[in-house]
Amino acid sequence: MLEEYKRLSPSEFFYRNKEIAGFSNPSRSLYTSIRELFENSMDACELNGILPEIIIFLRRVRKSEKGEIYKLYIQDNGSGIPKKHILNALGTVLYSSKYVIRQSRGTFGLGGTLALLYGQITTGKPVKVISSTGNSQIHQYTFKIDIRTNNPVVYSYKAIRNNKKWRGTIIEFYLEGNYTIASRYIVNYLKLTAAITPYADILFVDPNGTLYYFPRTVKRMPRPPKVIKPHPHGIDLEFLKYLISMFPKTMTIKEFLTKAFHRVGETTALRFLQYAKIKPTLRLGAISEDILDRLYNALRTYDKFISPSADVLSPIGEDILMEGIKKEFKPEYVDVVSRNPSSYRGHPFIIEAGIAYGGELPGQAGDILLFRYANKIPLLFDEGSDVSYKVLERLRQGSYRIQSDKPIAVFIHIASTKIPFKSVGKEAIADVPEIEKEIELALKILFRRFLKYRRKIIKKKEVEKRLKIYERYIHLISKFSGKLADREPADVEKLLEKVKRRYGVKEKIESTSL
Amino acid sequence: MLEEYKRLSPSEFFYRNKEIAGFSNPSRSLYTSIRELFENSMDACELNGILPEIIIFLRRVRKSEKGEIYKLYIQDNGSGIPKKHILNALGTVLYSSKYVIRQSRGTFGLGGTLALLYGQITTGKPVKVISSTGNSQIHQYTFKIDIRTNNPVVYSYKAIRNNKKWRGTIIEFYLEGNYTIASRYIVNYLKLTAAITPYADILFVDPNGTLYYFPRTVKRMPRPPKVIKPHPHGIDLEFLKYLISMFPKTMTIKEFLTKAFHRVGETTALRFLQYAKIKPTLRLGAISEDILDRLYNALRTYDKFISPSADVLSPIGEDILMEGIKKEFKPEYVDVVSRNPSSYRGHPFIIEAGIAYGGELPGQAGDILLFRYANKIPLLFDEGSDVSYKVLERLRQGSYRIQSDKPIAVFIHIASTKIPFKSVGKEAIADVPEIEKEIELALKILFRRFLKYRRKIIKKKEVEKRLKIYERYIHLISKFSGKLADREPADVEKLLEKVKRRYGVKEKIESTSL
Repeated sequence: MLEEYKRLSPSEFFYRNKEIAGFSNPSRSLYTSIRELFENSMDACELNGILPEIIIFLRRVRKSEKGEIYKLYIQDNGSGIPKKHILNALGTVLYSSKYVIRQSRGTFGLGGTLALLYGQITTGKPVKVISSTGNSQIHQYTFKIDIRTNNPVVYSYKAIRNNKKWRGTIIEFYLEGNYTIASRYIVNYLKLTAAITPYADILFVDPNGTLYYFPRTVKRMPRPPKVIKPHPHGIDLEFLKYLISMFPKTMTIKEFLTKAFHRVGETTALRFLQYAKIKPTLRLGAISEDILDRLYNALRTYDKFISPSADVLSPIGEDILMEGIKKEFKPEYVDVVSRNPSSYRGHPFIIEAGIAYGGELPGQAGDILLFRYANKIPLLFDEGSDVSYKVLERLRQGSYRIQSDKPIAVFIHIASTKIPFKSVGKEAIADVPEIEKEIELALKILFRRFLKYRRKIIKKKEVEKRLKIYERYIHLISKFSGKLADREPADVEKLLEKVKRRYGVKEKIESTSL
Repeated sequence: MLEEYKRLSPSEFFYRNKEIAGFSNPSRSLYTSIRELFENSMDACELNGILPEIIIFLRRVRKSEKGEIYKLYIQDNGSGIPKKHILNALGTVLYSSKYVIRQSRGTFGLGGTLALLYGQITTGKPVKVISSTGNSQIHQYTFKIDIRTNNPVVYSYKAIRNNKKWRGTIIEFYLEGNYTIASRYIVNYLKLTAAITPYADILFVDPNGTLYYFPRTVKRMPRPPKVIKPHPHGIDLEFLKYLISMFPKTMTIKEFLTKAFHRVGETTALRFLQYAKIKPTLRLGAISEDILDRLYNALRTYDKFISPSADVLSPIGEDILMEGIKKEFKPEYVDVVSRNPSSYRGHPFIIEAGIAYGGELPGQAGDILLFRYANKIPLLFDEGSDVSYKVLERLRQGSYRIQSDKPIAVFIHIASTKIPFKSVGKEAIADVPEIEKEIELALKILFRRFLKYRRKIIKKKEVEKRLKIYERYIHLISKFSGKLADREPADVEKLLEKVKRRYGVKEKIESTSL
């Protein structure tokens, strides 16, 4: 029997297997499309230190028996895409600005293009994109993606004079979807994003005309992440060879190490080469297979390299995280913690966590909601296979059996140059031991402080209850005692105030039925 | 700030994101590598109706501080790869014979090449492949993969005369791994494969010299799956356009429908076109955007297309499944069920399920082990997010609270031209409603029959216990009664035998302490 062999372009591969990137059915695909383009927009702002202003319009253009067609418009005030990259960045699968070592929402450099491709395969209509980097021209293209060749095909182009120096990107296209089902995910996603990015201004008008506005409440934003060189602990043999090939053959190995790697200075390079038993003056052109092997093994095993720098990361920051949670959920109690930077396999990361209690949190008494974030993206699906869920469950079933009369929410954010996602759909994080440990430490701090607060609250409630009884009768008692002793009644007000102050009870106790 | 835009080749993309395909750490990568190549080998046999004979040798060649290097040798007696495809099939990412509509273990046409790529990036050594389709020549290549260009680079080639008409493929390469951790997964994977493929002969020699042999016990094998045309319910607009472009412009739409689609004959085509309000004599060249749109929507909504044929699938079959389970686990009780074919979104599928109790099943009393299979691949990871797990848990917590004194195992196999895997790592199946329903029905049948068996067993045990007491005393009673009545004692043996036969109790009841 003759097997039919075939080569697929990256477009065609992801087109055929779009489920693995989150395009599994009309509702999920609508959610994923908005999410991917929104994340590109946020990156275009945050990576360049621009306070984000994002506008999303979703309009239903046709109701059909088997699916509905929507028009999605998304506008940002980000950096814009340079003219020569617009078509490829949006119309070619595996062409992206995300293929550097840097913390960003985008990871695979895939999602935005796949969203547009999804629109094309469900509606057959071209995409319109308008972008400017703020120079003298605004570029407007309509195009489709040729799936077999993985190339954009231009339908029209127009250059517009940019008198007002507008900067940003607008994308408009048609796609199949099901907003009835997707709406709660989309709104939830935006709300949870707003909860950690109070410096962003996000407006969403849904197909029913409902306006969701998440206004900016702070003007400072986290420092943008930086692009870094690879850390020696994160590389493989293939990559080492590639790095060597990028530098002149006459360069010494010592210089190569300092030029090619993150946090390797002259001293570190010399000490390392001594450990590896390689002469510092060896030229790159003279590296034999044997020396390469030794170099590679030494790079991986040498344990005195300085850990990757966390300065290159862009954590949310304790104050912004607290502000965001307060803004979106108005909880009675909120607490946040930012752990010290750590690293796994040469990738720096930071865990930030928060806890909130009561207020406008959704859910029931006794619930502990888990809100997961990775590089500022809220993760809404596959909670059960996420490392955060695993840690939270372990703590809840272990030493932290938290009872509560109101819902509690736990927020966990990981910022890293490489998030260990379990799939292209970016929904769950793998249980890397170093990450697991940091999440556990962060949660323990928050739980301890929360339990202390809870004990205080319970104590306070008891005091309030007792005080209410005292307050009602102490005047009478004081009056009667005075009469009995034939003296003026004692001034009990001061006493009461002192006790109230001590237990932090509000001045005026509202009388409730006792 | 200037963003750096970059295009990645498919090799480079999967090289950078190898975790998503199951290459996350040395132990898991070793497991995945063996699994992917083994699955290619099994496909090369089963897709062509060849009784599989697979040999795997894994040898540890170096112990290092941070990882160990292994040499993996895998040999099959499958169809072999034609010379012109050998290098690309193994040395190019997204080049495969799996890109047709057919049930096969391979889904993404990725895994084998990624395993070799993983070997290359961790050891730097080329791959050796020997293959023949059984003609006059055996081809032997050593090659590496150029990651940046996604092309194989040949190191050596040799043609060998194939006097004995040998047919099959041998792959030999080096890779980093950790067998100490991976061993239980690898052995388990092979054992679970053997449990549903008793027609395969599988030999594995591990790095410690331990030999695992899963011999063939049946000679009949399931019919090979067939390549089919797409079903109208499974296509999108993009694909419809592509299909139209593949046929001559002068062809009528009626003829096109019967030629392009699975299970669309003349009558169906005519009825459908009436529904779609399109003239059957319309030529493909005359299809306007409007008609295309109407055609597409009609194709998706017309509910009288015949369901995809399940004849093209290759289920395990009840007898082979039962034989396999018996062979590998020697259970006290085993039962299997094969559901009628069903379909989702134009893809045919069949659910087969089995239940086993006691014998050599691993686990504890009360355990219900779940063994999941997709197109004959055992799935060992991410059980919690699999549709089978969801259904099993629902039944266990609902009407089927099965108590058991010995471990029970449930086997669920889905055969389909398109398995809805949740990720490229092929570990969990998404909860497609149609599939969920079929799994539930299969399990209910098995549980009902098992509970009936259990009741019988419990009943039998009670009878046995009572009989033991009777047996001990009835002779005496009969003797005494005889004496009292002054008659010969009655012959109680016949009575006892009758009772035993009725309840299926073994002839000789072993006396145990009562």
